[in-house]
Amino acid sequence: MRDDNCIFCKIANGDIPSATIYEDDMFRVILDLGPASKGHALILPKEHFADVTELDDVYAEKVLKLGAKIGGAMKKSLGCAGFNLVQNNGIAAGQTVFHFHMHVIPRYENGPEMVAWVPGSYEEGEMEKTAEEIRKAL
Amino acid sequence: MRDDNCIFCKIANGDIPSATIYEDDMFRVILDLGPASKGHALILPKEHFADVTELDDVYAEKVLKLGAKIGGAMKKSLGCAGFNLVQNNGIAAGQTVFHFHMHVIPRYENGPEMVAWVPGSYEEGEMEKTAEEIRKAL
Repeated sequence: MRDDNCIFCKIANGDIPSATIYEDDMFRVILDLGPASKGHALILPKEHFADVTELDDVYAEKVLKLGAKIGGAMKKSLGCAGFNLVQNNGIAAGQTVFHFHMHVIPRYENGPEMVAWVPGSYEEGEMEKTAEEIRKAL
Repeated sequence: MRDDNCIFCKIANGDIPSATIYEDDMFRVILDLGPASKGHALILPKEHFADVTELDDVYAEKVLKLGAKIGGAMKKSLGCAGFNLVQNNGIAAGQTVFHFHMHVIPRYENGPEMVAWVPGSYEEGEMEKTAEEIRKAL
């Protein structure tokens, strides 16, 4: 189902033009207008889902394979050395448009850091306790 | 197929103990020992694939749905406000263990930035040219 107020629904369905690199019945893949690096792409389902927890299984099954295909094509065409797949859920996670999308970000040798964190640690027993909490909620 | 020299093969198959939060015939999900945030998890296939471009379709189809399930459980149990799914391919992209894995990173209100980039821009005509290059390689 489309959401008529959603800009990514409009782009995915071709109502707003975009630099499209791939399209099929279910997805459109476009270049991000504010790229993290040259070639930064977004995988957009043509139906509206706010985030990955809402994504229908029939879409979820195809996204990672499509990301691999796009990333592989970037390595062949753009000369990047690798790529990140990044998918954000919620404002606290950096999501800004509430239509599911997966970033495919080409990474070049000696390029800037983009997906980085400082490794933390757990206190004695805290890791097992945290694992148990998550397990109970599954 | 397992790779006997791969530490993530050993962890995924239970030869090395881990704080496991989920396990089925194909995957093990563990807590990262150096977490970006409390609860940071890794989805590991039990077979060896170096990265997403090598991942068998039968695994690729299940990863995103599993990520959604784990992230949803984190929101229920840990009180995080959102989560990132991050999957790195190649040294230049920050991959350090060459066994496919997807990070599930809980994100808390007012927590530190972790997955961030400075939005760049394209010069006139460069975006369409870049899109055409990738399209040709697909």
